[in-house]
Amino acid sequence: MHYTQEDLSALRNFYSNQLLNDTVPFWFPRSIDTEYGGYLLMRDQDGTLIDDDKAVWIQGRAAWLLSTLYNTVEQKAEWLEGAKSGIDFLNKHCFDADGQMFFHVTRRGEPLRKRRYFFSETFATIANAAYAKASGDEQAAALARDLFGRCIRYATTPGLLPPKFTGTRPAKGIGVPMIMINTAQQLRETIGDPRCDEWIDKWIEEIRRDFVKDDIRCVMEQVAPDGSIIDHIDGRTLNPGHAIEGAWFILHEARYRNNDPELIALGCKMIDYMWERGWDEAQGGILYFRDVYDKPVQEYWQDMKFWWPHNEVIIATLLAYLMTGDEKYADRHRLVHDYAYRHFHDKVHGEWFGYLHRDGSLAQTAKGNLFKGPFHLPRQEWYCMMQLNAYLQK
Amino acid sequence: MHYTQEDLSALRNFYSNQLLNDTVPFWFPRSIDTEYGGYLLMRDQDGTLIDDDKAVWIQGRAAWLLSTLYNTVEQKAEWLEGAKSGIDFLNKHCFDADGQMFFHVTRRGEPLRKRRYFFSETFATIANAAYAKASGDEQAAALARDLFGRCIRYATTPGLLPPKFTGTRPAKGIGVPMIMINTAQQLRETIGDPRCDEWIDKWIEEIRRDFVKDDIRCVMEQVAPDGSIIDHIDGRTLNPGHAIEGAWFILHEARYRNNDPELIALGCKMIDYMWERGWDEAQGGILYFRDVYDKPVQEYWQDMKFWWPHNEVIIATLLAYLMTGDEKYADRHRLVHDYAYRHFHDKVHGEWFGYLHRDGSLAQTAKGNLFKGPFHLPRQEWYCMMQLNAYLQK
Repeated sequence: MHYTQEDLSALRNFYSNQLLNDTVPFWFPRSIDTEYGGYLLMRDQDGTLIDDDKAVWIQGRAAWLLSTLYNTVEQKAEWLEGAKSGIDFLNKHCFDADGQMFFHVTRRGEPLRKRRYFFSETFATIANAAYAKASGDEQAAALARDLFGRCIRYATTPGLLPPKFTGTRPAKGIGVPMIMINTAQQLRETIGDPRCDEWIDKWIEEIRRDFVKDDIRCVMEQVAPDGSIIDHIDGRTLNPGHAIEGAWFILHEARYRNNDPELIALGCKMIDYMWERGWDEAQGGILYFRDVYDKPVQEYWQDMKFWWPHNEVIIATLLAYLMTGDEKYADRHRLVHDYAYRHFHDKVHGEWFGYLHRDGSLAQTAKGNLFKGPFHLPRQEWYCMMQLNAYLQK
Repeated sequence: MHYTQEDLSALRNFYSNQLLNDTVPFWFPRSIDTEYGGYLLMRDQDGTLIDDDKAVWIQGRAAWLLSTLYNTVEQKAEWLEGAKSGIDFLNKHCFDADGQMFFHVTRRGEPLRKRRYFFSETFATIANAAYAKASGDEQAAALARDLFGRCIRYATTPGLLPPKFTGTRPAKGIGVPMIMINTAQQLRETIGDPRCDEWIDKWIEEIRRDFVKDDIRCVMEQVAPDGSIIDHIDGRTLNPGHAIEGAWFILHEARYRNNDPELIALGCKMIDYMWERGWDEAQGGILYFRDVYDKPVQEYWQDMKFWWPHNEVIIATLLAYLMTGDEKYADRHRLVHDYAYRHFHDKVHGEWFGYLHRDGSLAQTAKGNLFKGPFHLPRQEWYCMMQLNAYLQK
């Protein structure tokens, strides 16, 4: 069933209200660490702190969020000051001597763990870029550009980061081109960078060529360097919510490029393929992992329902509907939106729970930990609000 | 309610029958890789192969099982030949040039992944020791002793293996002393080694001193080097099934030492503490992780029911009952045994499923993968059968 203008207007108001009166107030101002800088984000359902450690990914994501709210919603001084706290903490404590960033630090910023990935760097890029736009800080802008260059080097130089696997069975993941598309888009929309368009083209082309499999209607999470399917447990493992996140990055790019029809077609088929594999027809919600040939998956939580794939699918289906007017995306958006706000949203304390069993019952109460914080949910509510605003103004 | 002699005799017959007519036939002979050696163990519920890769831990464990069945149950040529296939594969393909073992190799034995732990080495130790006893192979005996020495070095030389964390917040896990106790016990009972008793003493003392907390009735999974609790998410995470596995290694040692009453008391209180925290009063079964202060746990599968903790708790409660005659251990054994054989056992194809949701429903069908294979279940059925045999013969 199509959405009417009234439906879309109500949705816009809903997302705006959730973002500003439910999600953001759960986190801020209480999470700003006024003593050591950065954010104290590992919180239980009622906001009680369960750990004062700091996850570097989430420090960057939170600084990005506050800067972005300042840039696009309202120039609130508390958002800009809050963003600065995270930017200062990241830049002061979260870089190792070799220039690589840490993954997990103490409240004071002492390093606990460094990983073989550069996602800390991608989140620090978008945080510094959005903060530079908000504040006019030239140092933050220069750092964002420098970090983006480092991320390109990490992404394109095999062996620059220590490998987790031997060279026996080379593989590459969709995560790298995906995160780099989004990082470049954020950089372009805040402070601009002449490298972005060309690199986005390359990464989209890599996804289209190597990860999207039309013959089996699938987006692979991992493939061999030549794009072939690696028929072992890891190689067969699909992450539908992640692939659909990639789909909306591509739809976002299509919109930037005057609704490029090829990019719209690519993003929409990625949604179609992975909706078919990820939506749980029996119990609702998006399944975390699936095997491409329906064999058992290694990861234990494979059929749990996590918050973030639902955020990504809410964005992707709404954006596909607004861009194509195809009724099926309204239907899917309605399904995933209703499921998610019914099962994940905490009506008592605000924000969403993170982890449900397959049947939708609550598995645990953390609102923030090493991997969850103020990012996927507020980004979804913000992005959907912004898209609906633009659509309704036309 | 106490077990009668008839009950115990029926239990003995049950475990023996399950082991020899249900569990072992699921795996063998079909899993012996007659082409490349070793075992093809990554199988779906009906035995279909889902991956021909080889997990080095499980290759060692399977060779240990077949050798142990040969040594203690019946001198079947097929068990000895099967064991030799695994031993040859391990020794030919699973060592890196630096002497450290791999974690995951291809069917042909090409390395895929090496990890920062030495559990491949501990399982290769017990496999070679049991095989040396079965075959009289002096090379295997020498290798087992050499590997045991290497494991001691890895366990006692900080920094010898690359660390996962920085030195900011040093921690140690109960896993190392536990696995080393069991490795030493296996070595002692097969080919003997003069180092075992002294090292077992040290590791038990370390567990008693640093991991067992009488004031809060708890066995920690991880502590600071001085035994203090690290009040962060990781440091607070408990693994009740693992702690209870450690408890039965200590009870086993108590039996070896003429029913040493202090060791019996230590093992029993470890069971008591972690039964209280791990047994799911609401839905039955052993919960995977708990937080020492009942806060949310990071690991997503924290409230799932995995097969192996149930194997360990079945052993521990039975052994505690046989050694103490305390009725509460019969009650607990009955609870966990009934839960496990009702929910995990596959009545159609044999063996157990590995992964249930908290409510006992099946999460996925794999019988074997990177972490599950012919080890915990057949070891439980074998060990319980052996203990009951000895008890009933008295």
